[in-house]
Amino acid sequence: MLSLDSVYRASFALKGVIRRTDLIRAPKLNSCSDICLKPENLQITGSFKVRGAYYKISQLNEEEKARGVIACSAGNHAQGVALAAAKAGTKAVICLPDAAPISKVEATRAYGAEICTVEGAYDDAYEKAVQLRDEMGYTFIHPFDDEQVIAGQGTLGLEILEQAPDIEAVVVAVGGGGLLSGVGYVIKTLRPDIKVYGVQASGAASMVRSLHDDKIERLPSVSTIADGIAVKQPGSLTFELCKTYADDIVTVTDDEISSAILFLIESQKLIAEGAGAAPVAAAMFNKLPIEGKKTMCLVSGGNIDVTILSRIITRGLMKTGRYCAMKIELVDKPGQLKGVASLIAELGGNVVSVNHERSSETADVNGCYLRIIMETRNYEHIQEIRSALTNAGYKLC
Amino acid sequence: MLSLDSVYRASFALKGVIRRTDLIRAPKLNSCSDICLKPENLQITGSFKVRGAYYKISQLNEEEKARGVIACSAGNHAQGVALAAAKAGTKAVICLPDAAPISKVEATRAYGAEICTVEGAYDDAYEKAVQLRDEMGYTFIHPFDDEQVIAGQGTLGLEILEQAPDIEAVVVAVGGGGLLSGVGYVIKTLRPDIKVYGVQASGAASMVRSLHDDKIERLPSVSTIADGIAVKQPGSLTFELCKTYADDIVTVTDDEISSAILFLIESQKLIAEGAGAAPVAAAMFNKLPIEGKKTMCLVSGGNIDVTILSRIITRGLMKTGRYCAMKIELVDKPGQLKGVASLIAELGGNVVSVNHERSSETADVNGCYLRIIMETRNYEHIQEIRSALTNAGYKLC
Repeated sequence: MLSLDSVYRASFALKGVIRRTDLIRAPKLNSCSDICLKPENLQITGSFKVRGAYYKISQLNEEEKARGVIACSAGNHAQGVALAAAKAGTKAVICLPDAAPISKVEATRAYGAEICTVEGAYDDAYEKAVQLRDEMGYTFIHPFDDEQVIAGQGTLGLEILEQAPDIEAVVVAVGGGGLLSGVGYVIKTLRPDIKVYGVQASGAASMVRSLHDDKIERLPSVSTIADGIAVKQPGSLTFELCKTYADDIVTVTDDEISSAILFLIESQKLIAEGAGAAPVAAAMFNKLPIEGKKTMCLVSGGNIDVTILSRIITRGLMKTGRYCAMKIELVDKPGQLKGVASLIAELGGNVVSVNHERSSETADVNGCYLRIIMETRNYEHIQEIRSALTNAGYKLC
Repeated sequence: MLSLDSVYRASFALKGVIRRTDLIRAPKLNSCSDICLKPENLQITGSFKVRGAYYKISQLNEEEKARGVIACSAGNHAQGVALAAAKAGTKAVICLPDAAPISKVEATRAYGAEICTVEGAYDDAYEKAVQLRDEMGYTFIHPFDDEQVIAGQGTLGLEILEQAPDIEAVVVAVGGGGLLSGVGYVIKTLRPDIKVYGVQASGAASMVRSLHDDKIERLPSVSTIADGIAVKQPGSLTFELCKTYADDIVTVTDDEISSAILFLIESQKLIAEGAGAAPVAAAMFNKLPIEGKKTMCLVSGGNIDVTILSRIITRGLMKTGRYCAMKIELVDKPGQLKGVASLIAELGGNVVSVNHERSSETADVNGCYLRIIMETRNYEHIQEIRSALTNAGYKLC
């Protein structure tokens, strides 16, 4: 049974292993609430997962420690287990599908784990891990459905209560539900007056669905930018704990998560992964009844692929009018490109790329298209440039 | 005269106004040293500048406070002064050139300052500020050459000594030299055994040049990605203080700063601006004699334009082989694009953009060019794709 005793033990075991992440105010996040962040993206390994993994491993007996541990993950859990095992002096084997992003594989290997790549998808890697556990006597470290792992994540609840005793609501992301279980259990046991909310990605809302149906449901597939919480099915322990201790679980879309990632970059100077930004998205887009409440959003991790980050930033710039693409229909005669270019330059648009093509798509046989991508200041600026082009006789598509 | 007394007073005045930023270890930064970061990018206003500005304003007499303050800046100093004045209940006027980035202008306005945009460059804005000071009786808040401002920045030295008494070297960025003056003064006065280093951008190395010539030099122009330290001339106070208290000042290139920005994103989940990343760049590229030393790099700020950030990330991805452009010469016949696309897909390249153009540049009259931009895993992956294309008979340019 999960108990405060085990959470206190975990908290003690983790001293000297993890950082006690600081609280950071986020005054621009939501004008109606007083919100602060607990940046577990700044935790070692870039996510909170090392808490549960380390506590679990620290509780193994000597024989189990000597045999080693195994886990199946390409993400934060893998890095958490790898580092936790290294700190505990235990061998770690991590099974992962061969399509796992090379950056995450390398990070896990760098923490000293043995990597076992398995052809196929996550389920194949999982089967391989179970097989190796049985053959080699490794202890399997479950990413969420394990009391000791949950107790480890619960240490975040203790920290929050110590760091912000006047807090009124706590918001955390939910994948398998280990984090919400641990944090919810601790907070509701010690301070039942504080609200505890979970946030899932709408493309992977397995806990929301399960709680709604009052039984564990398995989604046929999941799709979200927040790979850290893309979980098809809650655990049996976590299902019961979330049911008991969470006040509500809401969902956010990938678009909302992307906006939250961009907000964290611009206003808080923090890199969050999709899962880490989900609670921030819920607060930004008013998904929660936290008006007027002192609220803590847990930024659970920051391990986001830079390629994806780059796409999110570009998309965010487009959505806020700071990056725009225009397609202009021109008459195919000399001087047209120069005319457009001069106009844009005069108005302060900063051209990034130009594509000029003669095309049969145009009504006019002499017509051609110009596709320009430029940096702009905001929507008004884009409108200003569009009007100037139209007034000068160019036809915008 | 700058004194420890004034730094302690500043430290006291700043309690409840600023955050005491936490220390964060950076184990992957440099394998030869034990490096930690002090993330002042997570400070309110996104930079340390609020420390000096607030202390300065707090020391004004009632009459001066009633009249208000004026500053000239489009960057961190503007935001620092704006917020500091708001916290002190004083009016702030910020003069800035009309080409200042709209995001920074808006951020400054949001802190409650009155914005005075001046046609022209920085120098014009400065002149306007001086004129308004004389006309209106505002107190001018200098960004660095002021003893109280320097004492405010010096509070960082006190914090570092309290947070990491076993530190052996401290590295900070240098523009006008206010930060290095304050931190260097405090550390060398209390703990002369600790090394204090400054870092300038090689395109704006006015302090390095001045110290070399042993007199204050004015650079005709400056050019660096690190706009926060793009200063043409050191102050007279800061010149003397840096001369006395810094062990050395080194320079880093914009390329090195960009790599440091990318490192901070990927490994530390922190957004730094160019100036903020400069000390990290110096440590990454072995510009300093810190081998084996416990070293603190101060990340002074995180106010970087997202458009620039996006460019740095893309460039960084290209440099590390995770984003690449290939130009392929094709024979202009059906099926060629499909052939190339299939090959790239098979090898796991993720195509981002394709440009297919018939062109007279090719040797063959039937030839055409295909320009493909794709996401790749690393240099080996790029090489693998190039070889496969070559082996299949495609000609890479």
